[in-house]
Amino acid sequence: METLVLPTYSDVVAGAERIKGHAHHTPVLTSRTANREIGAEVFFKCENLQRMGAFKFRGAFNALSKFDERQRKTGVIAFSSGNHAQGIALSAALLGIPSTIIMPHDAPAAKKAATEEYGGNVVIYDRYSEDREAIGRALAEEHGYTMIPPYDHPDVIAGQGTAAKELLEEVGPLDALFVCLGGGGLLAGTALSTRALAPDCKLYGVEPEAGNDGQRSFRSGKIVRIDTPVTLADGAQTQQLGNYTFPIIRRDVDDIYTATDAELVDCMRFYAERMKMVVEPTGCLSFAAVRALKEQFKGQRVGVIVSGGNIDIARYAALLAG
Amino acid sequence: METLVLPTYSDVVAGAERIKGHAHHTPVLTSRTANREIGAEVFFKCENLQRMGAFKFRGAFNALSKFDERQRKTGVIAFSSGNHAQGIALSAALLGIPSTIIMPHDAPAAKKAATEEYGGNVVIYDRYSEDREAIGRALAEEHGYTMIPPYDHPDVIAGQGTAAKELLEEVGPLDALFVCLGGGGLLAGTALSTRALAPDCKLYGVEPEAGNDGQRSFRSGKIVRIDTPVTLADGAQTQQLGNYTFPIIRRDVDDIYTATDAELVDCMRFYAERMKMVVEPTGCLSFAAVRALKEQFKGQRVGVIVSGGNIDIARYAALLAG
Repeated sequence: METLVLPTYSDVVAGAERIKGHAHHTPVLTSRTANREIGAEVFFKCENLQRMGAFKFRGAFNALSKFDERQRKTGVIAFSSGNHAQGIALSAALLGIPSTIIMPHDAPAAKKAATEEYGGNVVIYDRYSEDREAIGRALAEEHGYTMIPPYDHPDVIAGQGTAAKELLEEVGPLDALFVCLGGGGLLAGTALSTRALAPDCKLYGVEPEAGNDGQRSFRSGKIVRIDTPVTLADGAQTQQLGNYTFPIIRRDVDDIYTATDAELVDCMRFYAERMKMVVEPTGCLSFAAVRALKEQFKGQRVGVIVSGGNIDIARYAALLAG
Repeated sequence: METLVLPTYSDVVAGAERIKGHAHHTPVLTSRTANREIGAEVFFKCENLQRMGAFKFRGAFNALSKFDERQRKTGVIAFSSGNHAQGIALSAALLGIPSTIIMPHDAPAAKKAATEEYGGNVVIYDRYSEDREAIGRALAEEHGYTMIPPYDHPDVIAGQGTAAKELLEEVGPLDALFVCLGGGGLLAGTALSTRALAPDCKLYGVEPEAGNDGQRSFRSGKIVRIDTPVTLADGAQTQQLGNYTFPIIRRDVDDIYTATDAELVDCMRFYAERMKMVVEPTGCLSFAAVRALKEQFKGQRVGVIVSGGNIDIARYAALLAG
């Protein structure tokens, strides 16, 4: 078995240089209402205000920036029905690289349209009768495309780590930092930045309660695979952590918590009413956990990464209306 | 007749010092999608992300900061069913000044609750049978309260001007700047900053089409009074410009445009879908005009002040759902 070379904080630093001027340096917002509710000073790193509406742009752009001339010419392939697809399509367009995105036939029309608008060549597969990995492999082999997975890749992880780097550089050391957890790209990248810039900061991942494979993996020390969980947090419907993300999370993270769908919707309303932000369910995981655990963090400085704001607007309206 | 002493840019500069550390220095956001749609470089100054969700905090805090000891002790009174009330209540609480807010009996429960949460003493009047100004005057006389009007006051105007000061200092000179127009506090304050920092920048006010008293006043040279207009833009349902705001607007603004309610809702969806922000209808006026007039601004640098994000969440959900 091949030994994996895990990314380090110096890869995050190099990634920050690569994405500079391409990714937004997103704002860190604060809310008196949030501080009062939690009894702590809360800093929200707003990746919903990132380009294409999610942190995923950081990792995608970083990975594509490292392509050699041949890879740039032949292009990139990715499969995703979500933010990774848009991050790859937009990054590829900016770098002049052809991109192919494999999406399920029932992906929301808006996501398909947005990906195409960013210049991605969308290939549709039938979620129930076709194997997207086989389709991807066949296309990659036929055309020489380079596959960039949504989280389990050193350059993707290093790129995602730039959000926490910006946050910690802007607000200084934190006592605790909360990050959503799906496949672990954002959490692993955040871990690299946090251990380098704020070694005493407690770092927590937050998963949907319906899909706590990360929590079980973290606590047992072995990657646990589950069926695709049923949750509103569609960005965290992963079945397992990755070979790169798991060892970093296991080494650097303090614990993994979970949040229920009801807590996510409540949090989504909080963001809309009190902070005037559209946040997708997955983006609500981090603050939902802070709210549930607030007694532990009284008087502390707490960071929250708001991962994204991509949600179909009719669905968003329906969830807000309740 | 008393000669009015109009505020100047030096009052804005002094106001900026007073609100420093109390008001948020709000972010300036950009959107590739907006730039592509308009064919220009658009800079959004996000006052929906200001404390209490609107620029009104700036003017209220500035005005209350100038209270002398007697005024601080006896307190402030304001009448408003909207953002001004919350701005006064919050500013007064921060400065340790008692506040009384006169609100109509049919004001949304959420607004009343928010004002009380900020520490305001809410006095309810019947919109149909009572005169709020008479109630206000009686209370002010009885208790010695100082009345702070929502826009027609030099300190309020100077405070509102700090938003454009921050914008222009951050992004440099603009070719055009768009600002919503109700009673004219924000537009007049913006005019002071714009004429000082970007003298060649075209400055435009934008009103709801149903209530174009400002446009008619600006073009005729005399304050025109209208009946309360029926529009979604509840922050711009004023009947006329003020004695302080009108002469500044007349002197420094280039023109006044209007937007329809349908354009505002369209713009509100744009902000939610593409910029992940909750913006109230009044806050949509500025960008709605940019979209309608885009042919005039090709290749230019265009500023947009997003005035606020305070809207009842059920109503917001209903407008998004369409």
